[in-house]
Order: sequence, then C-alpha cells, then structure tokens
Amino acid sequence: MIFTAQIKVMPLKNLLDPQGKAVLGGLANLGITGVNDVRIGKQIELQIEADDETTAREKAEEAAKKLLANQVMEMYDIVIS
Amino acid sequence: MIFTAQIKVMPLKNLLDPQGKAVLGGLANLGITGVNDVRIGKQIELQIEADDETTAREKAEEAAKKLLANQVMEMYDIVIS
Repeated sequence: MIFTAQIKVMPLKNLLDPQGKAVLGGLANLGITGVNDVRIGKQIELQIEADDETTAREKAEEAAKKLLANQVMEMYDIVIS
Repeated sequence: MIFTAQIKVMPLKNLLDPQGKAVLGGLANLGITGVNDVRIGKQIELQIEADDETTAREKAEEAAKKLLANQVMEMYDIVIS
C-alpha cells in the first residue's frame, strides 16, 4: 500500500527566524497590515510503500530524524494518510 | 483577536522538484527504503490580528498571492485557526 506522509518542519519557538522576519517586513511594504509574526518552515510530502500505517510512520520518523529535520533547531510533526 | 494562518506552499504536481529528488537520493543512501516520491514545499505560519476569521483569511490569501507563493509554479492552501 502507498501512504502519504506529510512532514512539517518548523524552527523552534524560542529561536530567531530571520526568513520569517524578512517576510514580515515584505508584508508591511506591500501594505498588508495586522500580521504580527511570521515563521517559515518546510513541508515535505513522502509517498511511502509499506504494509501498514505503523511501518509507514516509522519510516517517516526515521527520515525526519536522520535527514529532514535538525532537532537542535527544528521540530517536526508527521501526519500519515 | 489573533488568528493563526497556516499556509502550505507546494510545487505543482506536474513540475519537477529537484530538491525533492535530492532528498529521495539521500534517503536511499541512508538505507531508508520504500519511499517512492518526495516533494518539498514551504510551511508559513502567520499570526494575524483581525476582527473575524473571514478578514484573517482575506489577509492570508492576499499575503500568499502577492508574496509567498508563485502561482505559476506553486499552489497554496490556507488553514485558519
């Protein structure tokens, strides 16, 4: 079976996010008001071939830990469907 | 009121995603098997101050169209909470 794993990788809350700060400035320059904070992360979609959802989740966890997220600076969240 | 807008920006399905292809190769090198496809996009979280959810969604749409997504190559999806 093919499962889709949606992995969201975001910078940790207490770290600076310079990319987000740049976008916040850009929004103000475009006249879009009322935006107080911007944080930018990655969204990774994996198509995983696995026997069941548990195995698919394990593979996605392994991929996130070993390659996709740097856990010193980022947190990740996995949704399997 | 403060609303959180989660904007997911992904490359269009029929376009090449070289970053995803690189991650696919990296996963194979790490011995993580069973992953058939990888697509990589952006996840942007906005904290929006607005009177109601409709206004917050309009602001998020405007930000996505004008700054965050390039609609020639990317599609976006907004969730307000």
